Amino acid sequence: MTPLEILRNKRDGKPLTEKEITFFVEGAAQGTWPDYQLSALLMAIYFQGMTAPEAATLTRMMTHSGRVLKWDGLGGPAVDKHSTGGIGDKTSIVLAPLAAACGIFVPMISGRGLGHTGGTLDKLESIPGFQTRLSLTDFDRILRSLGCCMIGQTAEIAPADKALYSLRDVTATVESIPLITASILSKKIAEGITGLVLDVKTGCGAFMPTIEKSRELAKTLVATAQAAGVDCQAAISNMDSPLGTHIGNSLEVLECLDMMEGKGPADTLELTLYLTAKMLVVGKVSSSMEAALKLARQNLTNGRAMEIFLKMVEAQGGNPHIAENRSLLEVSRECEQIIATTSGTLQKVDALKLGYAACHLGAGRNRSEDSIDHGVGILMRRKPGELVRAGEPILEIRHRQNRGLAQARSLCEQAMQISEAPFQEIRLIQEEIS
Amino acid sequence: MTPLEILRNKRDGKPLTEKEITFFVEGAAQGTWPDYQLSALLMAIYFQGMTAPEAATLTRMMTHSGRVLKWDGLGGPAVDKHSTGGIGDKTSIVLAPLAAACGIFVPMISGRGLGHTGGTLDKLESIPGFQTRLSLTDFDRILRSLGCCMIGQTAEIAPADKALYSLRDVTATVESIPLITASILSKKIAEGITGLVLDVKTGCGAFMPTIEKSRELAKTLVATAQAAGVDCQAAISNMDSPLGTHIGNSLEVLECLDMMEGKGPADTLELTLYLTAKMLVVGKVSSSMEAALKLARQNLTNGRAMEIFLKMVEAQGGNPHIAENRSLLEVSRECEQIIATTSGTLQKVDALKLGYAACHLGAGRNRSEDSIDHGVGILMRRKPGELVRAGEPILEIRHRQNRGLAQARSLCEQAMQISEAPFQEIRLIQEEIS
Repeated sequence: MTPLEILRNKRDGKPLTEKEITFFVEGAAQGTWPDYQLSALLMAIYFQGMTAPEAATLTRMMTHSGRVLKWDGLGGPAVDKHSTGGIGDKTSIVLAPLAAACGIFVPMISGRGLGHTGGTLDKLESIPGFQTRLSLTDFDRILRSLGCCMIGQTAEIAPADKALYSLRDVTATVESIPLITASILSKKIAEGITGLVLDVKTGCGAFMPTIEKSRELAKTLVATAQAAGVDCQAAISNMDSPLGTHIGNSLEVLECLDMMEGKGPADTLELTLYLTAKMLVVGKVSSSMEAALKLARQNLTNGRAMEIFLKMVEAQGGNPHIAENRSLLEVSRECEQIIATTSGTLQKVDALKLGYAACHLGAGRNRSEDSIDHGVGILMRRKPGELVRAGEPILEIRHRQNRGLAQARSLCEQAMQISEAPFQEIRLIQEEIS
Repeated sequence: MTPLEILRNKRDGKPLTEKEITFFVEGAAQGTWPDYQLSALLMAIYFQGMTAPEAATLTRMMTHSGRVLKWDGLGGPAVDKHSTGGIGDKTSIVLAPLAAACGIFVPMISGRGLGHTGGTLDKLESIPGFQTRLSLTDFDRILRSLGCCMIGQTAEIAPADKALYSLRDVTATVESIPLITASILSKKIAEGITGLVLDVKTGCGAFMPTIEKSRELAKTLVATAQAAGVDCQAAISNMDSPLGTHIGNSLEVLECLDMMEGKGPADTLELTLYLTAKMLVVGKVSSSMEAALKLARQNLTNGRAMEIFLKMVEAQGGNPHIAENRSLLEVSRECEQIIATTSGTLQKVDALKLGYAACHLGAGRNRSEDSIDHGVGILMRRKPGELVRAGEPILEIRHRQNRGLAQARSLCEQAMQISEAPFQEIRLIQEEIS
């Protein structure tokens, strides 16, 4: 068996055998396959796809390319949530302590933002002192004592994915359903979870813009996770307009603090409660979505989620006084208002354009090695469905010494869609797949 | 413009612009693109193909990635022939001096054998002392004085092809019509020729086994060469059974010497005369194929081709006494006969199987770094169409101390197709494309 034979088979549309997939994944993890053969195979997989058994085998092999965590004697179910990435989506930061408050253990290993989408780690690191690089011993300790801990990927977890993802990123092979599936699930399954809730985004700001592709991805993810013995449910949620009102790292943590005080925008709140409730159902803490939603709402309003969140911040080296002193979360005061040029109903604020705008400002990165500015971003002063008047500020750009301002301004202006037409509300939670 | 953007465009089926192709070819030639992006793009091209203008641009850029030869004041047209590779195809060795005898200048830069197909350089190197690595100064001198010279690719000619071909070879991206086209033509056009005759093989021993694919390749090659200002004609010739009677390096040179003495098997002779005549027409030495064939036949039988061939051998450091002393071409005396197991008509001798058999014996190479044995190979004692009797020798294996003999024997036995059915003759020259 040689890499060339495997390349030929996939190129010609033959499903790869377990042996072939094992050889490929080991080749990626151990560096025994040259990058040029790995990337050619990734492109062949992009074009030829993978059968369900192939995707399941790939996921299993990638999971076991590194350490698979175990949570003996945890005293509750280990359940996580994963989103395929959006703009303004800060649900994880509230959901993890909230689920923990309800009796779930959330060993969350997250990623960084890339391109137009933000990343949970970047947002958390806008909290002064917050460490996302913890040893697995500390991860274990914090998880057991608080019920949640949020770290970045370590070299021990799914190293094959690390190798393959960095190649996919530079070879235009990211957008492949079996590769996305194996990448997401190998890391999540390696967390040692027994349940997983997936938030698959759809719409212009999503990775998979059409509902058909999002549905295909969600179904493949759920089937592959279940084949690996993880109880998995997915929701497809809308990402045509950004989630919530705050985009940017410090800004999004501020919105999270509002939520944990029972405030915050309706859409972020709805999605966070919904996904947390799904975790409670998957983790068998609640027997129905109704009961789960009630329990989640209680623990948000009674301050338990905030309490756990601040303890987690402290345990991870961060300053727990951010809740009482919001100025600890540094946000640039240099701002520019983007105003409505006509009156009417704000139909949509294009999520993808706002994602790129935030990236230009320095809130995101184009390459994984770029550094980011936690203090810049965009505030949505109006949400879709609202009536606006010409001249009113709709978006507020927070920039640092005009960096990327011209491009961000132009993108923000293009992003607003205002018309006299009746507002067509798009449901936030579009479909459920289980 | 980044490699990633170009990768995305090709992946999504967008034709690449001249700028994008230039960036890619320069990246390959100068090593400024990493191999993993080159190989991912090659695989994307494999799946998405290229438009005619894209293939023409790719060819032009690859041609100009290195030195393009010029033949001022040559006193005759510079025309070459290229074959897509077969088994037992030694036409170049006779055709070059024969075309030279008829007034054509043949600056032939050839390749080595790989896999089941032989290579002209390997065959020539079975002549004691023959050098295929000449400086371009020597190449120029010999071409001007004799009308032909046969060398291997130098680092100065189409370096982008060298880089890309070595990647294609290990990433299963060889079998792509636009990539084959650019690879063949960039090297040939860099020879500074004004005319080119192509022999595109079809059948089980060919690179493109089906007539449809062979036709597509031939048409793409002719159109692309003509777009580059080179007068080009192609023939599609059959490669179901090997050409001639001798397979292996020294053995094939022996068959060539026979041909230049007016002997040799009918099929090799027919194809050599036909391709030479096409060169005479393309080079405007003859005004019709009839006149060209007559002129070629004359120069073969009157000994002029042999005379020029031996002068070329001498000029390139080889022993010119091979014609009178055939034992200078070392052939192993260890042999094994492969006999007919039934009586009937020999319908076919599978070219691909004989190619692999010869490779097992050591006549070819599996990897470009493998060394070869010039003295081993296979003799066809019967040709398709002949009546054979059970027990009669059909093939004769020449091996060296049993190396690869078991595999070669088995392949040779499988290669013979004998039956009572009436013989279906397959025309050697199947189609012409101009």
